[in-house]
Amino acid sequence: MRERVRPIVMHAPLRLSPPKGGSNPHLGLLYDSARPVVNFHGGATNVLHGFSVPLTPQGKSALASPPPWHYSSDCLVVEYWTDPAAISALLPPGVAADEKSRGRAFFWFLDWQFTGSNDEVTDPARYQYREAFVLVEAVFERTPINYCPYIFVDNDAAIARGWAQGFPKKYGSIFQTRTFSAPSAAAAPLAKGSRFGASVAAHGERLATARLQLEEKVADPAKVFNRPTVMRRYFPQLAAAGQTKPPVDELTMSLTDNLTIVDVWAGSAELTIPDVRGEDMHSLAPLRIGRGYRLGMAYSVTDLRILKNYVV
Amino acid sequence: MRERVRPIVMHAPLRLSPPKGGSNPHLGLLYDSARPVVNFHGGATNVLHGFSVPLTPQGKSALASPPPWHYSSDCLVVEYWTDPAAISALLPPGVAADEKSRGRAFFWFLDWQFTGSNDEVTDPARYQYREAFVLVEAVFERTPINYCPYIFVDNDAAIARGWAQGFPKKYGSIFQTRTFSAPSAAAAPLAKGSRFGASVAAHGERLATARLQLEEKVADPAKVFNRPTVMRRYFPQLAAAGQTKPPVDELTMSLTDNLTIVDVWAGSAELTIPDVRGEDMHSLAPLRIGRGYRLGMAYSVTDLRILKNYVV
Amino acid sequence: MRERVRPIVMHAPLRLSPPKGGSNPHLGLLYDSARPVVNFHGGATNVLHGFSVPLTPQGKSALASPPPWHYSSDCLVVEYWTDPAAISALLPPGVAADEKSRGRAFFWFLDWQFTGSNDEVTDPARYQYREAFVLVEAVFERTPINYCPYIFVDNDAAIARGWAQGFPKKYGSIFQTRTFSAPSAAAAPLAKGSRFGASVAAHGERLATARLQLEEKVADPAKVFNRPTVMRRYFPQLAAAGQTKPPVDELTMSLTDNLTIVDVWAGSAELTIPDVRGEDMHSLAPLRIGRGYRLGMAYSVTDLRILKNYVV
Amino acid sequence: MRERVRPIVMHAPLRLSPPKGGSNPHLGLLYDSARPVVNFHGGATNVLHGFSVPLTPQGKSALASPPPWHYSSDCLVVEYWTDPAAISALLPPGVAADEKSRGRAFFWFLDWQFTGSNDEVTDPARYQYREAFVLVEAVFERTPINYCPYIFVDNDAAIARGWAQGFPKKYGSIFQTRTFSAPSAAAAPLAKGSRFGASVAAHGERLATARLQLEEKVADPAKVFNRPTVMRRYFPQLAAAGQTKPPVDELTMSLTDNLTIVDVWAGSAELTIPDVRGEDMHSLAPLRIGRGYRLGMAYSVTDLRILKNYVV
Repeated sequence: MRERVRPIVMHAPLRLSPPKGGSNPHLGLLYDSARPVVNFHGGATNVLHGFSVPLTPQGKSALASPPPWHYSSDCLVVEYWTDPAAISALLPPGVAADEKSRGRAFFWFLDWQFTGSNDEVTDPARYQYREAFVLVEAVFERTPINYCPYIFVDNDAAIARGWAQGFPKKYGSIFQTRTFSAPSAAAAPLAKGSRFGASVAAHGERLATARLQLEEKVADPAKVFNRPTVMRRYFPQLAAAGQTKPPVDELTMSLTDNLTIVDVWAGSAELTIPDVRGEDMHSLAPLRIGRGYRLGMAYSVTDLRILKNYVV
Repeated sequence: MRERVRPIVMHAPLRLSPPKGGSNPHLGLLYDSARPVVNFHGGATNVLHGFSVPLTPQGKSALASPPPWHYSSDCLVVEYWTDPAAISALLPPGVAADEKSRGRAFFWFLDWQFTGSNDEVTDPARYQYREAFVLVEAVFERTPINYCPYIFVDNDAAIARGWAQGFPKKYGSIFQTRTFSAPSAAAAPLAKGSRFGASVAAHGERLATARLQLEEKVADPAKVFNRPTVMRRYFPQLAAAGQTKPPVDELTMSLTDNLTIVDVWAGSAELTIPDVRGEDMHSLAPLRIGRGYRLGMAYSVTDLRILKNYVV
Repeated sequence: MRERVRPIVMHAPLRLSPPKGGSNPHLGLLYDSARPVVNFHGGATNVLHGFSVPLTPQGKSALASPPPWHYSSDCLVVEYWTDPAAISALLPPGVAADEKSRGRAFFWFLDWQFTGSNDEVTDPARYQYREAFVLVEAVFERTPINYCPYIFVDNDAAIARGWAQGFPKKYGSIFQTRTFSAPSAAAAPLAKGSRFGASVAAHGERLATARLQLEEKVADPAKVFNRPTVMRRYFPQLAAAGQTKPPVDELTMSLTDNLTIVDVWAGSAELTIPDVRGEDMHSLAPLRIGRGYRLGMAYSVTDLRILKNYVV
Repeated sequence: MRERVRPIVMHAPLRLSPPKGGSNPHLGLLYDSARPVVNFHGGATNVLHGFSVPLTPQGKSALASPPPWHYSSDCLVVEYWTDPAAISALLPPGVAADEKSRGRAFFWFLDWQFTGSNDEVTDPARYQYREAFVLVEAVFERTPINYCPYIFVDNDAAIARGWAQGFPKKYGSIFQTRTFSAPSAAAAPLAKGSRFGASVAAHGERLATARLQLEEKVADPAKVFNRPTVMRRYFPQLAAAGQTKPPVDELTMSLTDNLTIVDVWAGSAELTIPDVRGEDMHSLAPLRIGRGYRLGMAYSVTDLRILKNYVV
């Protein structure tokens, strides 16, 4: 057995182990969904399968198959502070800046492995992926949250699942230094002094670059990572008469079953978010850098909390 | 001036030059949309811009900016016949097999250049893309149509715009032999005897391969390409209580302004659609191959016709 | 027939139409090579085929098959001036700065189609590629030349052929706006006012970006493009005792049979070469920008001129 | 500290811990190279840096910087038997089939992390890479060896270093299931029953696919992995008069300092090497599959053994 930091329950809104008087009571009451497993779409004669397009008789082509979706990852995270006005300017209705945060944000890089119910873990060419996103601290109905305005992945199945949750995913090229078992100057072990790098690019433009140097293990990551993640789930209308009335425009909250965080290390960090033509993420460039973190994280997704429906 | 086949109007449902007694009267009456250009999404304090996610104050990050969307392309097309039962099995409600077609389908490969209203044509790293799709002949309300069950592109902006139309786009790697101006054994000119190849792959699996040899110019491509393209526009619900009730599930028809087709050549063709783990497109593998075509095509998109709403 | 600028013979050292008293007499005398077509590599029992690795009995796996190699391309070129000292600092022995040039250089972006003797033109996934390089003006034995210090391609076969010539190719992601036949705001026709963009990136870092606006046709491109291209062909030794004695270290000159240049347009141009960690090309960043060009170019390669052998 | 199998010394020809009466005496005597660190290339006025092209004053652009090169990796390996005649047909002069092996071969998939002397480990976008290769058992001067006829990587720096060693690297897209720390159905732990997949593709064609299921730890991997790796180092001549006389054509042996192998598991395996247009690797397709292995491996490279020079 590999040694690890005690697995912790991090986000309050967990399905399988609901918090008892957790820190986000305003978002509570979501632990009762007896989700029907049914997921086909009946036609007059056809039964088509798939959670997302394309829907087919066999259901193999769908970018996303029905949940549960299981994930495990390695993560590099940089805490930083940006212009609070830049955060405020991109928040959706009902979400406000968190005045206590003074512009606090987290930039995440993740190497993900995914599996559903069809042994996807053994098809890494199709389902393994890498991700980068920024979370800004905000408040929804008096509850501190993290809001996700920008996110990049290198895999289309991850885009399809992410859009269904409300993550505004775009295609990017993401890398992070990995920890390898075989000792070497190239192994980047989880140990004091180890150096890690990470980057995200899209269409040949570097959008963010980070570097970390590990200093010490973190005993209680819950002090750092303790807000639910909130997104804007949005799907547009192209029909001319309805282009200002999107059929889907919701504020959603990510629900993560069996969330586990392991092997958390902290250290010093660097982060740059350069100004790039055709991208707005630079508006959240760092004014001050905090700590860097390296950790493992796993969870499953079977559900989504809709906090607000902007369409009605 | 380069010589060309007279630009033709091909799909009946054109906005700018509506057909006078066209061949698809059942789909008519869609030429009057005075589309409002408004396309922002107001919050309590913020005005966020973008046709698709991510929505931002500046509107540059959005995968898709509001229409009009302008396109020009080079296309390789292979006409073929597949198992009619395989076509029937994947048609959505209300769409039926076209008995006269006996399984006729077209496999398209396209090199696309896109521009919107922000000089995107000069940012090819972000907006130039390649596409491959299959169209199967079917019937909707007595009108012959082409239905698009599978489509691949190599660009995320194209995925976002395509999903908004109803194209079930996935990420792929697509190539076609191009015609170059400078004469050479490598130039593949538009001339009798020229040979072209094309392929689409996803996640390192070859999904289709085509080869063409040009024989003669086509005087009237409208005899070949004369059906509107119909898709299923679909966006799922992840919230557990609603996973069987997608918020968007429509039968849509592509509307193409100023459709122009030029330089159409026909010839002999080969096409293979191999059986690949994790993909269903092989169910539409060719039983018999028809003609191959090489052509140029341009149009603009500003609107979408919703033929049927499956949600209600 | 598409209209075109009269195809011209550009580089003096052509094999098939040797110049009569051309402008580069110091490099002359290379028009007589009766190249043996033999290209296998005999072992005791095996005959292995391939111009480059991997050598196999069947010869299909080789990255490069034996010449002739045929090429046709579309090109965007930006003339500019950089720091003459930066040019001097990277020239190989025997090559000197061209004092008259005062730092003149050309940045090229090329969309290439390649074919050898095995119908490679119909396998675009494997053989079509894109390229970007910089040429700096210099002098070798009193002859004005262009020297190529940096070059990027997106294809491994192109790397293998390029290294054999002396081009120091690295892997990159290259794009240029293309001219399409079907008229559209997205078509970028060869016409006054048309705008083109181009870029090269490597490992998610943008290395150069260019933009052009066409103004007029160029009647005589030979006034612009009239120097042979010279490279340093270099292959290292890893065996410890020989690491300072590379087995291949030559000054070479590209030989292009049947060079043809067509459809040359000139206009205004922009070019940036940003400073990027892990790359030195920024040392050749522009101080002043000249004209931009858009043209078609084709040639074949069957030979190479070795100007100097540094190993002896 | 993570638990691990005792690091073992595997290849006989190690520099830092030379074998005492090892199993490959015919290849011995290579433990004394006092490698000069000098690695610049002097011109009349310029000192250019880089182990490989491009050579520059600053030395950052070179695909490969001078050794030492440090590596750590995760590996999936499938033992299998192919047609002995197919092995014999691609061996270089002086290398013979190993009759006792009866066609034994190993297919390797590797996730690599690399670092040189410039903190490359923190620039994963540029230096992290993935690899797949086949090793066939053969004999050189009565010594059992593994010969590497085919190898693919997804990184140009790895191609440059590999060619310098003699590995006939081509560009490919390689994936393997990874082991993640955070427990999940997606984590693929090193444990009995865990399933792994791996694949290599090039230019959108799947070249090999493997799957493994772990059964037990391997106490002594030296029984499995105990032959040195031998390659053909080859660089062609393009100058017409010399196209049959490559300047570099050697039989080389990989030298690995500080070789460490950890966490070796064995289990059942599947492997396919399909027939693909433009590739010859299918000639080594499996007739029978042996065991599958999952392991960690690290070593450094500072030197190369030249076994035979075919040029002389």
